[in-house]
Amino acid sequence: MTRYGTLYGIGVGPGDPDLITLKAIKTLQKVDVVLAAASTRNEASLALSIARPHLGQETKTLRLNFPMTRDAAVLENAWRENAATVADILDAGKSAAFLTLGDPLTYSTFGYLLRVLALHTDAPVEVIPGITSYQAAAAFTGRVLVESGENLAVVSGVADEATLTRVLENSQCAVILKAYKNLPTIRRVLAKLGLGDACVFVTRLGLEGEEIITGLDNLPEKPSYYSLLLVRRER
Amino acid sequence: MTRYGTLYGIGVGPGDPDLITLKAIKTLQKVDVVLAAASTRNEASLALSIARPHLGQETKTLRLNFPMTRDAAVLENAWRENAATVADILDAGKSAAFLTLGDPLTYSTFGYLLRVLALHTDAPVEVIPGITSYQAAAAFTGRVLVESGENLAVVSGVADEATLTRVLENSQCAVILKAYKNLPTIRRVLAKLGLGDACVFVTRLGLEGEEIITGLDNLPEKPSYYSLLLVRRER
Repeated sequence: MTRYGTLYGIGVGPGDPDLITLKAIKTLQKVDVVLAAASTRNEASLALSIARPHLGQETKTLRLNFPMTRDAAVLENAWRENAATVADILDAGKSAAFLTLGDPLTYSTFGYLLRVLALHTDAPVEVIPGITSYQAAAAFTGRVLVESGENLAVVSGVADEATLTRVLENSQCAVILKAYKNLPTIRRVLAKLGLGDACVFVTRLGLEGEEIITGLDNLPEKPSYYSLLLVRRER
Repeated sequence: MTRYGTLYGIGVGPGDPDLITLKAIKTLQKVDVVLAAASTRNEASLALSIARPHLGQETKTLRLNFPMTRDAAVLENAWRENAATVADILDAGKSAAFLTLGDPLTYSTFGYLLRVLALHTDAPVEVIPGITSYQAAAAFTGRVLVESGENLAVVSGVADEATLTRVLENSQCAVILKAYKNLPTIRRVLAKLGLGDACVFVTRLGLEGEEIITGLDNLPEKPSYYSLLLVRRER
């Protein structure tokens, strides 16, 4: 009889090594293997660098590689292979922690891993939440995210113009993540809705090149991947 | 010349004492005074109980009292008095930590304190984010909050029926906080939108009487104050 190891989905927070929870630290200290995966190599490295000071002496680290492609079949194949690797670890009775920047259940790849992993093993899964980039941005700028009587929309900046417009029209408060590739579109939508004064753009928080820009007039031409917008209407 | 103390707004997380960040712990260990305030006595007690193991030997705790009333004038007066108390501490060069359950900038009273405090002192403020109740609920149930290509709405269950309907119509994913007083209305809206199968109700997470209820058929008659709903449509 094999006893499965547990898979822990761990949110390591937004980048500041001190914005990790005590529960994540205790878990990192006891797991056999730490797994890092992300759509970009930098995210995986950053997640690992946050976790590393907390790892036990015997802990192994393993990077799950994903091809840089939008080809769904190629990606699905990579997920299957990586899930099989993780299942092998758990089936051998070893515990593993899958790292994600921010929170494992908020725009993370951890959900994909869970779905594919369930095809390979019955090993138990435990999720440890993490501080999101937008909470850190709000804290850093001292801006309220959402208050009593308001609602908050969290949306990706890669959404189309109609979706962005509809979401912003129906919320007092909003967070627009991944505000880089489509920043011109996002800016146009915000301006059209008269929300210029309600915005602050936060880029590379806690990293080199960190910047806070209020309003829409001085947004960068080539924004970093680590960019988001906080929006809150005056009442 | 007086040197101001710093006011720290600290999110102590959703209840589990291990879901507090390292940064919050380090800050609690160094501040002179810890402040707890909330709309209910239980919330203040819970926040204090999470912080207590991390406090230095010399740290004082102070409860800011708010009358249990909806009278805006009475409440505003209480805020002014409490802000004056906090300002006196900071102006004397002492540092203080204001505790909030969850995150200080997400449906917290910390924003009110900041606004009133600014009338009394120029002391610096630093915010330390915390894990929200809905992140903890998603982690506990192993449900994805929001994934690539989706958007997430965070809304209070005390919102009116029209607002709830509009928000749920425009989001793949939603969190309905404070799902207690208006639970019959919330249930009706979710049923009308065909979202019964997309819901899970989480109550008293990490507390006595913790329960997870899938769907809308078995919701409690008298839900606890610590209740929320997670909603995610199938794609």
